[in-house]
Amino acid sequence: MAAELIKGLPIAKAIREEIIEEVNGLKAKGVQPKLAVLLVGDDPGSVWYAKSKVGVGEKLGIVVDLHTMAPDTSEETILEQIQGWNMDSSVHGILVELPLPKGISKEKVMESIDPKKDVDGVHPVNRGYLLGGQEHLALVPATPLSCIALAERAGIDFKGKRVTLVGRGDTVGRPLASLLIKRDATITVCHTKTKDLPAECQRGEIVVAAAGFAGLVKKDMISPGTVVIDAGVNEIKDEATGESKYVGDCEPDVADVAAALSPVPGGVGSLTTTIIMGNVLKALKLQGADK
Amino acid sequence: MAAELIKGLPIAKAIREEIIEEVNGLKAKGVQPKLAVLLVGDDPGSVWYAKSKVGVGEKLGIVVDLHTMAPDTSEETILEQIQGWNMDSSVHGILVELPLPKGISKEKVMESIDPKKDVDGVHPVNRGYLLGGQEHLALVPATPLSCIALAERAGIDFKGKRVTLVGRGDTVGRPLASLLIKRDATITVCHTKTKDLPAECQRGEIVVAAAGFAGLVKKDMISPGTVVIDAGVNEIKDEATGESKYVGDCEPDVADVAAALSPVPGGVGSLTTTIIMGNVLKALKLQGADK
Repeated sequence: MAAELIKGLPIAKAIREEIIEEVNGLKAKGVQPKLAVLLVGDDPGSVWYAKSKVGVGEKLGIVVDLHTMAPDTSEETILEQIQGWNMDSSVHGILVELPLPKGISKEKVMESIDPKKDVDGVHPVNRGYLLGGQEHLALVPATPLSCIALAERAGIDFKGKRVTLVGRGDTVGRPLASLLIKRDATITVCHTKTKDLPAECQRGEIVVAAAGFAGLVKKDMISPGTVVIDAGVNEIKDEATGESKYVGDCEPDVADVAAALSPVPGGVGSLTTTIIMGNVLKALKLQGADK
Repeated sequence: MAAELIKGLPIAKAIREEIIEEVNGLKAKGVQPKLAVLLVGDDPGSVWYAKSKVGVGEKLGIVVDLHTMAPDTSEETILEQIQGWNMDSSVHGILVELPLPKGISKEKVMESIDPKKDVDGVHPVNRGYLLGGQEHLALVPATPLSCIALAERAGIDFKGKRVTLVGRGDTVGRPLASLLIKRDATITVCHTKTKDLPAECQRGEIVVAAAGFAGLVKKDMISPGTVVIDAGVNEIKDEATGESKYVGDCEPDVADVAAALSPVPGGVGSLTTTIIMGNVLKALKLQGADK
């Protein structure tokens, strides 16, 4: 039996159509949604992600103001730029590409963003709303929110389900735990210190892999009929060609036993930029800028 | 076999001695730790808790400034009082007794407290530090922190253990989940929508009951040898006498099978006021007032 593949692209497309409709409504009222993206340095991954936001923004009618700074920019200059965007009511979302160059305090930069404009969900206030169950007030990081959107739009209901969550990072695992609890899942959170990861995965009706470790979840760890969401993105070198490629946290043959599987690439990762644009609209509303 | 009882009082006493030592060190430097407590209205439980803080503070050398307001006090007056304490560098901790009278926005009041003085851990920023794994920056709510302190000082190690956490409230369950993940436990978070609560409890090496539901955890749900931490406090009427009494989330005969059990009363609850005083000292240090 081969798993049904939960593909991200058609779901991203559906969400984009909803966003376009909402943007058109805002523009009719004279409101132009705008996201400011700060790219410090020239990390190739960050450059790629920043440019893809500009491209997606254009398609959706959201202005993405990409601001680049040299890798040796001072923390003070970065904080001043963010402060400017915080004060600028025409900017509804602020996102700083990570990683930042060495010597810059990630913590300080993240905390300098107005929580209501923090479309990457990195400010403690937004994490706090998540932990407090006040999701309606929170801007939620894109990857965990993409996992939920992908699963829910594929018709997966978390309510009452045993969900094994593999991974406890601050960007994906822990925020995702809060989102799953809110959706009435009975979650088990696994990590490197978990004694029997195969057993914990086998008892999951849904397994979400978010550890950032290529091939961690293997076929024999998954019970037949399980739904598997792979939220891992791991860069590996292809031994034959020497080229880089991206793989998930699950081995591909998990598809032989799972009832459904979101593949990598082509699953969760296909949604994240779209979800960030959705966060820009939520941010705009939290700011009361839609009136 | 009867469970070893994990009693709160001797542990509270040990923590108090450490606090007294630290307070003496601060006083020698001319620093007087001070907690401001706001009590609005005359809810009997709140009055009792507020007064017990004054009493414990006196014993530890921490000034507790108990400020009472009439039940019909306006939200504006409450916010002004908190703002005053936020600005007053002689006040290191601020705590507002809950519940607040009807018509007062709990959310607004909690968010008005300077996060660095929020010794009850109710501000989103403090919850956010917890979810982000930045516990060193966080002021953590007293009940979950008391559970951890009680267990750890009783020699219980969470690392790698299967911990079943019953309850997902914003005051105890969810903050406790973050604390347990940080301590390398493999947690399963259960709640009203969990399909098979007995099975989830039976597989726990440690069970923490924090649902706020009297007698929810029964003897047959606990495997022999399990450590049970009861963090529930439920007011019930004694059928014989008609008087109120406090019971936990576990039925008393859980003690017949558990290896160890923290009783109610006499367990977690014996620590909470002491833990709040510990938070006052942590707050003072986060403010840099210890220099």
